[in-house]
Parts: sequence; C-alpha cells; structure tokens
Amino acid sequence: MIDLNADLGESFGAYVMGNDAGIMPYITSANIACGFHAGDPLVMQQTVELALKHQVAVGAHPGYPDLQGFGRRQMVFSPDEVLAMVLYQAGALMAFLRACGGKLQHLKPHGALYNEAAVNQPLAMAVAKATMQLGSDVILVGPPDSELSRAAESCQIPYAREVFADRAYEDDGRLVDRRLTGAVIHEPDVCLHRMVSMIKGKPITSIHGNPLYLQGETICLHGDHPQALAFATALKKAIQESRVPLVPLSKMALSSPMFHS
Amino acid sequence: MIDLNADLGESFGAYVMGNDAGIMPYITSANIACGFHAGDPLVMQQTVELALKHQVAVGAHPGYPDLQGFGRRQMVFSPDEVLAMVLYQAGALMAFLRACGGKLQHLKPHGALYNEAAVNQPLAMAVAKATMQLGSDVILVGPPDSELSRAAESCQIPYAREVFADRAYEDDGRLVDRRLTGAVIHEPDVCLHRMVSMIKGKPITSIHGNPLYLQGETICLHGDHPQALAFATALKKAIQESRVPLVPLSKMALSSPMFHS
Amino acid sequence: MIDLNADLGESFGAYVMGNDAGIMPYITSANIACGFHAGDPLVMQQTVELALKHQVAVGAHPGYPDLQGFGRRQMVFSPDEVLAMVLYQAGALMAFLRACGGKLQHLKPHGALYNEAAVNQPLAMAVAKATMQLGSDVILVGPPDSELSRAAESCQIPYAREVFADRAYEDDGRLVDRRLTGAVIHEPDVCLHRMVSMIKGKPITSIHGNPLYLQGETICLHGDHPQALAFATALKKAIQESRVPLVPLSKMALSSPMFHS
Amino acid sequence: MIDLNADLGESFGAYVMGNDAGIMPYITSANIACGFHAGDPLVMQQTVELALKHQVAVGAHPGYPDLQGFGRRQMVFSPDEVLAMVLYQAGALMAFLRACGGKLQHLKPHGALYNEAAVNQPLAMAVAKATMQLGSDVILVGPPDSELSRAAESCQIPYAREVFADRAYEDDGRLVDRRLTGAVIHEPDVCLHRMVSMIKGKPITSIHGNPLYLQGETICLHGDHPQALAFATALKKAIQESRVPLVPLSKMALSSPMFHS
Repeated sequence: MIDLNADLGESFGAYVMGNDAGIMPYITSANIACGFHAGDPLVMQQTVELALKHQVAVGAHPGYPDLQGFGRRQMVFSPDEVLAMVLYQAGALMAFLRACGGKLQHLKPHGALYNEAAVNQPLAMAVAKATMQLGSDVILVGPPDSELSRAAESCQIPYAREVFADRAYEDDGRLVDRRLTGAVIHEPDVCLHRMVSMIKGKPITSIHGNPLYLQGETICLHGDHPQALAFATALKKAIQESRVPLVPLSKMALSSPMFHS
Repeated sequence: MIDLNADLGESFGAYVMGNDAGIMPYITSANIACGFHAGDPLVMQQTVELALKHQVAVGAHPGYPDLQGFGRRQMVFSPDEVLAMVLYQAGALMAFLRACGGKLQHLKPHGALYNEAAVNQPLAMAVAKATMQLGSDVILVGPPDSELSRAAESCQIPYAREVFADRAYEDDGRLVDRRLTGAVIHEPDVCLHRMVSMIKGKPITSIHGNPLYLQGETICLHGDHPQALAFATALKKAIQESRVPLVPLSKMALSSPMFHS
Repeated sequence: MIDLNADLGESFGAYVMGNDAGIMPYITSANIACGFHAGDPLVMQQTVELALKHQVAVGAHPGYPDLQGFGRRQMVFSPDEVLAMVLYQAGALMAFLRACGGKLQHLKPHGALYNEAAVNQPLAMAVAKATMQLGSDVILVGPPDSELSRAAESCQIPYAREVFADRAYEDDGRLVDRRLTGAVIHEPDVCLHRMVSMIKGKPITSIHGNPLYLQGETICLHGDHPQALAFATALKKAIQESRVPLVPLSKMALSSPMFHS
Repeated sequence: MIDLNADLGESFGAYVMGNDAGIMPYITSANIACGFHAGDPLVMQQTVELALKHQVAVGAHPGYPDLQGFGRRQMVFSPDEVLAMVLYQAGALMAFLRACGGKLQHLKPHGALYNEAAVNQPLAMAVAKATMQLGSDVILVGPPDSELSRAAESCQIPYAREVFADRAYEDDGRLVDRRLTGAVIHEPDVCLHRMVSMIKGKPITSIHGNPLYLQGETICLHGDHPQALAFATALKKAIQESRVPLVPLSKMALSSPMFHS
C-alpha cells in the first residue's frame, strides 16, 4: 500500500502559489499550510473543502512563523516554542475540518522545521508531543530513520515514512544534501522507475551506485512546477498497474502493526 | 446566577499586558486572546493552564489581525473573511485546551470586531456561524439586544449577555458612546452599586436619570488598571453577600431554558 | 507631455506578483511597494535597481499594513498614524535609492489608502504633509480634483493628476464607481483611443455620453494581466506618433508653472 | 571622551516597553528600534522627537523581523537579506529624522543580529556596507575587536566600540558568555567602579582576576530595569567628576583620527 501526499494551501491573500485544484485528483493525502509560513484562514478553509470534495485525507503542515522566507529559513526556537506553535497551527486547521465534518489524519512539519526536527532530538520530541496532543490517532509524517521517527516511537504515535521521487539517497537511506551535485533527479522517467521499484519492494540505486531498499508509506509530490501534473499522472498510473493499493495513510495505520518505523 | 469574565492572555512575546495571575482568582470565565490582536502560542498555552488551575472556564477571544492596533481599529472585512478568521483563532485555542484536558466554553469577539458585530447583521451572522461550527454547546458572548444576540438566536446557539460595570447606559439599554461625557463611570463605589442592583433584579439609573432594568449573565472585569484587583475583590464579596451564585456560563446554560436572549 | 506609471515591486518572498521586467521598458515612472501591503526589502532593492537600469523614475507606493488584503481593505487610521506609516515606508524606499545613487521622484498612495485619501480631507493632509517632509521637490500623485489634490495645493507641493486608461468617468471627471456597469472598459482599442484623445487635448466621452476634457499628467498602466504588455506597446507607440513627449513627472514639474491642479 | 547610549523606542502599539522619557536625560546617543523586532512608525516618530528635544544624537537600531522574539532569536539570513533589511529599517528611521530636521548619527544592530554580526564575517560586511550606503559619516556601533569592527575597517567607515557596565569580560576583552556564572554583574557599585576605571584609562579586572584595559567609545545603559535611573544618575555624575567629557559619538568621530579600532 502506498500514499501520495502534496503540500497545498500555500496561497496567501492575493498571492497565488501552486496548482491545488490540478494536483488534488492525484493524491490521497493533502498537507495544508496553516498560516505561519503560507496560507491564510480563507485559503485554509477553501483547501480543506477542496480536499474533502476529492476524498483526499487532510493533514496539518505547520511551519516557522516566517511568511517572507516561506518557512524555509532556519530559526532557533526552544522545544516549548515549537510545541506551542505546532499546536496552534494544527488546531486552527482542525477548526475548518470540524466545520466541514472532516478529521485530521496527519501532521507533517514544513521546510526548515521538517529539516531541523529530523536531526534535532528535543525539537523532534516537541513535534511528536504536539501531534500526540492533537489526537491519539493523528499520524506524524517525516523522513525514515530520523529523530522524528524515533520521537514518534518514543511517544507511541503512528508514524509514516516519507520518500521523495526526485531526490537521490545515500547508501544508508538518508537524503543527499541538496547542495551536492546529483542530489536532485531531473529526469521524470528515472524518478518514476525509482518509485515503482520502491513500491514493489525492489532496491533503488543510491548516489554511490549501490542497491538501497528504500522504505516508505508515502511519496511526496510537488504541485508547483510545470511538469508536476504529467508526472503525477504517470506515477498514479504506474502504481495502479503495479496493483499496489493507493490509499490514504489512515487506511494503512489500521491494518499495519509494523507501522512504526 | 452571574458570571464574571475578563480578557486575558494579552501579552505578546517580551511584551507584558495585564495581570492575569492577579485577576484569575476573581473570575469564573476567561476570554483568551488568540494571536491576531494579542497573545502568542506560548502565552495562550500558559493562560489556558492558569485558567484550568483556577477552575476558570475558558473562552476564545478572537480579534482582527492587527497587533499594532490591539484589534481596536476598525477594518472592513467580508463575512466570509470574518467567519474564517474566527474559526482559525478559536481552533488554535482549542488545541491548547485539548492538550490540557479542557473544553471551550464560549467565544467572545474582541474590540472592533465586538463593536462591529453588535451592529452589522452579516458580520454578526458570520461570528455566530463560526461559534456554531466550533461545537453545538459553545456559548456566544456579546451585548444584550444586538445584531450579535439576534444572530445567536437565528443560529439557535446559546448566548450570554455581557454588561459592563464601569459604563453608562442609554434608556434603551445600549451603551453610551465612549466619546460622550459620562460614558465611563470612574467611581468604584458607583460601579459596584450598579452591578449589585442588576444582580438583584433592581433597576440601575440610565445616563438620562431614568430607571433601567439591565439584564445580563456575565459582567466584564478589566484586569489591567491599578484598582482592578480591589474592585474585583469588592464585587466578588458583594455577589457572595447577595447570595446570587457566582458560576461560569456553562453551568447556567445547562439550567436555563430562558437562556437565549 | 505625458508620463506613464505602473505599480511595481509587489512580489513578497517566494510569492511572485506582476511582470516588472516586462512592463519596465514602457513606463517613465515606477510606483514601488514599500513592504506594508506588498514588497519586501530584497524585492524593493531589486526593483529600484531595475528601474534605474531602465532610467525609469522611482516613486514610493505606500499602503496600509495589510499584506493579506494587499492593502485593498479599508481600515480606519488616524491622520497621525497615516502620516507616520507613509513616512516610514517612503523612508525605507529612499534608503535603497540612496544606495544606488537614485532619488525619490514621487509618492503615490496605494489601494484603500489612495481611495480614502481622495475623499477624506484629514487623511489627504496627512499624506501631503508626509510627502512634503520627504523633500520639497517630491511630487504627490493622485486623482484630479480630489481631497488629495487640494491637500497638495494647501501644502504647496507639486501634484500630478493620474488618469486610468481602462476606467469610465462621470461628467464631472470623477471615476465611475467600480461596482457600476460600464465602470471598467475592457476593449483595448477604446482605452487607447481615449488616452490619445486626452493627450492631444481632445475630449473623451463620459459614461453618460457627454464630452469630457480629462486632464492628467500621468497614465496608470497595469502590469499584471495577460494583455498588459500588448496594450503598453500600443499606447507608447500612439504617444510617440502623437508627438507628445513621454517624460517622467520630474521633467514636467520643472517646466510647468501650471502644474498644480 | 565617552558616550552613553541606550536602546529606546521599543514600545509597540498598546504594548509599552522601557522608560524612554526617564532615561533620555542621562544619555548622549539613542539607539531607536525600527519596527522589525520592536517599535512602530508612531513610536519611532515620538522617540525621534523626544531625543532631539533632549539634544540626544539618534542612531538606527535594526533587528531581525521577529517581533514575537524581540529580535533575540537566532535566524539564518543571507548577507543580501541582512543588507536589505538593515537599509530598509534605517531608511525608515531617517525619514522621521529628516521630518524633524535631525540627522542619523550611527547604526547599532540589535540582539541576535548584533551577536551574529560580531562573529560572522559575511553578515558583518553586510551590516557595514548598509551603514556605508546610508551616509559616509554614519558611525557603526558594535563590540571591540569583532568581525563587525573589522568589517567597518574594511569599508573605511567610522566605528565606535561599545562596552557594557554590567558584564564580565574574558582576559582577551571578549564578553563572558551570558550562560556562565558571573557573566552578569549585579552590584551597581562594582559596575560603576569598572566604568570609571575604563574611562580613566585604568584596567578593570577580568573574570579570571587579571587586569584588563577595556577600551570603548560608548557605554550601553539599560533603561528597562527598576534601578536603571539610579545607576544612570550615578554613572553620569562619576563621569562628570572624572572630568572626561560626555559627548555623542559624532563629536568624537570628528576629533579622533584613531577612531577606527
């Protein structure tokens, strides 16, 4: 089973970002920005409604309070600050879900918060605790084998490992640093082939040429570049042809005792 | 029965506002700022914890997105914008309540939003609908006999009428415009006497010298001026001596079928 | 003589707005957003550099502090607040000009501030005073025959009357309310014809079918819709063919004693 | 000669911070917050007016865009971003100075920007370049023997070394890390004695008990704690008794060829 997720609801007031309506038919889980790094109350409400209309599961996508930097600039916060800012943002999103009869499926930190929580144990614990306090069945989404996955295990909350179709991996399964040559894979066919291999339980090739069994429950799709829809179409078709069920994370959590990484 | 409420959680980062710890022992309901006109995630969390520790019921106190103007400057929003901004702010507060095992008792709009929703029917409906979408038992707090009270009736949600100890009233029960002489009553003894009269069902005197039967379920206390605690102490003592039960709004809602104004 | 102006520098962080590089070759004056309703320090710096490279004169385009509403939502400020917010924003822009060896030519308020200052005498005076305090030769740009033009006259500062190619006018020269049918003219040929008439000193037709001698020193071009560049090209060509000199406002101010409207 | 400086204008809207009117009579240079970490346009205007009324020289005190964290939280910015945000903030302040007939004397970065620029060469260069672009005689204020002082030397702009009355120093003149015991000196008499020694060219005692010749042109006074005014009074009196002239930095810059540290 596999889930496809995308970061949505990133417009702000008159500023339009991404192509939410275009990508929605291809995904099973939507990570909706919560107003700190992107999104505003009206955009959040409309994106929740759009997701529910497409029967796409909804997750909170909280970020640093940095609209100008789109949540991608590193900022130094205490774990208490991170816990509170994640609760705040996810709680705001939950109000729109409640109003529409929906439910929060998951939480995936955004940008610099995602990157920092992946390697910083106290911050990872803050994110995991916030997720736990939002509801016992809320799934935390993050990188495999990270401080975030270990924090989820420590808090005994469900965790979904996220993989990236267009990123190269080290021999040990970590992402290759974006600043290194070859870190981003630009050929759609190669990306597609790698994801199909992963889904079928076959190895992909690490950046060093070695076989790597990449494991993940959800694949991140990017919705904001020109070929995004073409790639999403091809990936969805390949998943269907491989007979691996494409389902939102909440369906997996119920059926997989091995869910915790 | 009477409830005492105060606007709390108005500090922001290093900026301290009010005396939350001082006023908390005297009130039964706390209106907590939600980050748009005052408050930040950490302040909200700490104020929720403080309220629960004192067994004070918690309400959301959403305002316009105007930290510099403290939510007191008039801004023109569409009803859709108001609905979304109220849901957002109250949802954020609810996450802190959920984390602490608490529950949202009420919602009271702040400042310019309170004033505008009192007289603007579409905005009043937006606030009432948002309150309804937060939970069927969430109580809307606002002025008696206003667009807000009528919107609550129209949405069939519980409504609590708020009165002010230190404000003069017109013959018809409306507040005297703040800009007029005599609008604010500065003598604590007079304020106290008026509140005791109201609680006992006796008339107070309107600004024109006529008897006025002021009706309300909750009295707003201000926590941020020097004599606030002395007045709160005196008022609480007077209420206790008058044998009128001092209870949070949620206790009234359960026992009063006449609750809707 | 005529000037062509456009609102530029409206991007914010990762959010892109408009087509500044595309429109710059067609205009003589750029109104650059100053960070309150749009723009950020880096965008301001880059837009100033782009304008100077194209020898386009630079003006400040201050707005209300409302990024989410793009400065288009009405807000109620005191004249003191408006004076201070205009000085702040224009001062910030002047720092980038100074760093590049440029000079502030003009100031044009944005959106709701423009509309409000056109009809509200105290706010118009606040904007005019701020403009005066920025430098004795800074030109205020606004609608003809408005509170803003009268405030400029009262402060004895240069004023440039702005006209809109795509808007209908009443018999008395005021803009037709946007909400009325026919207020916006959608045919590029009609817009072009009207502007050429105005430039040549011939009457245009008011919305009521009467001849109207529209007067203005600067025409506002919009850069953010698909046909903007085609229209800009056609208008610039028509101006050149009409042998009316296309010059920035500062060139006019020096040569026109009749400049004050 | 010695200068006394203080961080002022840190109130924001309804939020009051510090005691500007109280401390102003004791200082010769005011560092005025510019709206990113503290201050707003009205506060800036009023603080500039207050400083000029007391004949106190005015400097810009730019910080990170983090009102909630009061500019004290570390954030990672590129040098280009820092250059632009410093120009923006200082430019805004200069507009208020120009309106009042004043002049920008100096620029001192605030909080996390001060700390980071002291040790980060590219950021220090960005701050120094911004200062240079604001005017050739604008003085940069920062710690002695730091990346900031070296950047000023490299840009050939005047630099004033700042010392702290209430902080312990290492043998080499660096501040003792705030987190270490003894880093902050709490006895006013000790603080006073150390400053008088410095002014007279005598050594103070480092945290390790060794003599240290601390050098600086300006002493930072804190205005926001209860004993601030008493300490300021005592320090000003001691300086006057020591017959060392108390003058703003601009007076020194003119007379000291050895000004660059």
